[in-house]
Amino acid sequence: MAQAVPPGEPAPLRGRRPAQGDAVVDRAFTILGAFDPTHRVLSLAELTRRTGMPRSTTLRLARKLVGTGALERRDDGRYAIGLRLLEIASLALRGHGLRAVAMPFMEDLFHITRQHVLLAVRDGDEALLVERLSAHDADPVLYRVGGRMPLHSTGAGLVLLAGAPPAEQERILQGISARPAGAQAPDLTELRRTLADVRRGGFATVTLGTPWPRISVAAPLLGPGDTLCGALSVVLPSGTVDHRAMTPAVRTCARAISRELSSGPREDAPDHERR
Amino acid sequence: MAQAVPPGEPAPLRGRRPAQGDAVVDRAFTILGAFDPTHRVLSLAELTRRTGMPRSTTLRLARKLVGTGALERRDDGRYAIGLRLLEIASLALRGHGLRAVAMPFMEDLFHITRQHVLLAVRDGDEALLVERLSAHDADPVLYRVGGRMPLHSTGAGLVLLAGAPPAEQERILQGISARPAGAQAPDLTELRRTLADVRRGGFATVTLGTPWPRISVAAPLLGPGDTLCGALSVVLPSGTVDHRAMTPAVRTCARAISRELSSGPREDAPDHERR
Repeated sequence: MAQAVPPGEPAPLRGRRPAQGDAVVDRAFTILGAFDPTHRVLSLAELTRRTGMPRSTTLRLARKLVGTGALERRDDGRYAIGLRLLEIASLALRGHGLRAVAMPFMEDLFHITRQHVLLAVRDGDEALLVERLSAHDADPVLYRVGGRMPLHSTGAGLVLLAGAPPAEQERILQGISARPAGAQAPDLTELRRTLADVRRGGFATVTLGTPWPRISVAAPLLGPGDTLCGALSVVLPSGTVDHRAMTPAVRTCARAISRELSSGPREDAPDHERR
Repeated sequence: MAQAVPPGEPAPLRGRRPAQGDAVVDRAFTILGAFDPTHRVLSLAELTRRTGMPRSTTLRLARKLVGTGALERRDDGRYAIGLRLLEIASLALRGHGLRAVAMPFMEDLFHITRQHVLLAVRDGDEALLVERLSAHDADPVLYRVGGRMPLHSTGAGLVLLAGAPPAEQERILQGISARPAGAQAPDLTELRRTLADVRRGGFATVTLGTPWPRISVAAPLLGPGDTLCGALSVVLPSGTVDHRAMTPAVRTCARAISRELSSGPREDAPDHERR
């Protein structure tokens, strides 16, 4: 896991440089963080409003980010996330590194199901959707690639939560129970029982009613030393397919990916990928 | 296209803030740029060496980037590109926006070919590979998702170069001819003829011998106002399939994607994607 404060290294060098210098990195990422799925293109005025920073600061940093390729300025003067970020992000081990190994196996599973095949990793208290293969005529699913999913109410999320280190899992469960109670507030006792079932069985099954009745079947992806690297899941319309018939396929595919993940060092994989 | 110096806006505000502040953004991206496909995990010492920056600066900025999620610090103390960048990059219109529309159609094409299906966009003088579907048992291809391909010697690249604005195309051609001559130096006259053929025919076919004899068939993806948004290509082992039989499939698929690209505004697509 990533650590905000790395141990075993010299103390922070605060004071040697103006604090302003360091804060610029945060401000730059505040600008990048102003974009979201429903705001993929923003004008300078919109960026200024959404970041809450002065217009001059926003303009200066936006230009800097255009210079690095992290932002692109379109012909209409508005800004969008740039391709350079896509290029850098493709090097993320926990995302694209995992994806590169999993993708051909996911294709196999997609051929069998012709619905949705998802690949997710845990990022803190949520799951991040790294990949999704969806059939042309499949019903829509809620989550997009690069988007986040809840851990306690999705198949892939339950697999990731069940395999999290105990202390981390407990912290996340406490966070879930501390939320303002609503109609959908999960029962912690029930959730703990579900997580124990997922650990024991090696897979998770979740039935959901919205936006359409569907079933998610998920299984863990294990890397070297049986560390949990991610979750593979299939989302199917409920009723049309017996999900119990789908479980062995998902588990078999997850095991094939896990074997591949454990078989060799991926971080030094050559640019000329084998697949 | 992205522009480094946006017109029609106030002059740069240089001087109001220390230059140091702005330079921090460049330095932060120098650190992110130190990672590449064969260096996905770097120690502080490696980061320092590869960036050429002082160790204290590198450490301070690496920590800042860990704080934003752009970097992750692993248990062994080394750094890797973080999932937060994957999340932000997924909002890139020219990458994932295009990908979201193209993906189901690419799946269809993949079903027919069971080899490699590629989606690429032009980024300056190169093509950036946004997506690649590859069969489990397909021969390896040279390019990985997030990686760059030459414009003049790949099917997708030729389509992107042929459709570039004339002045931009000429600039790129001059750049190609100005490179140190090697065994593979392209003949500019021949290349211009090829580009005219691609424009006239609406597709590109390239035969390549390494790493294995293969043929690439590519077609343009057009957005609103028939602007070139990207290229779709199929890579097949040469000899096993008549590529002339594959060309109509690639062109048909590219037209279907283009129709979808032109049919509505994607930039305001809701999080609950329709596919």
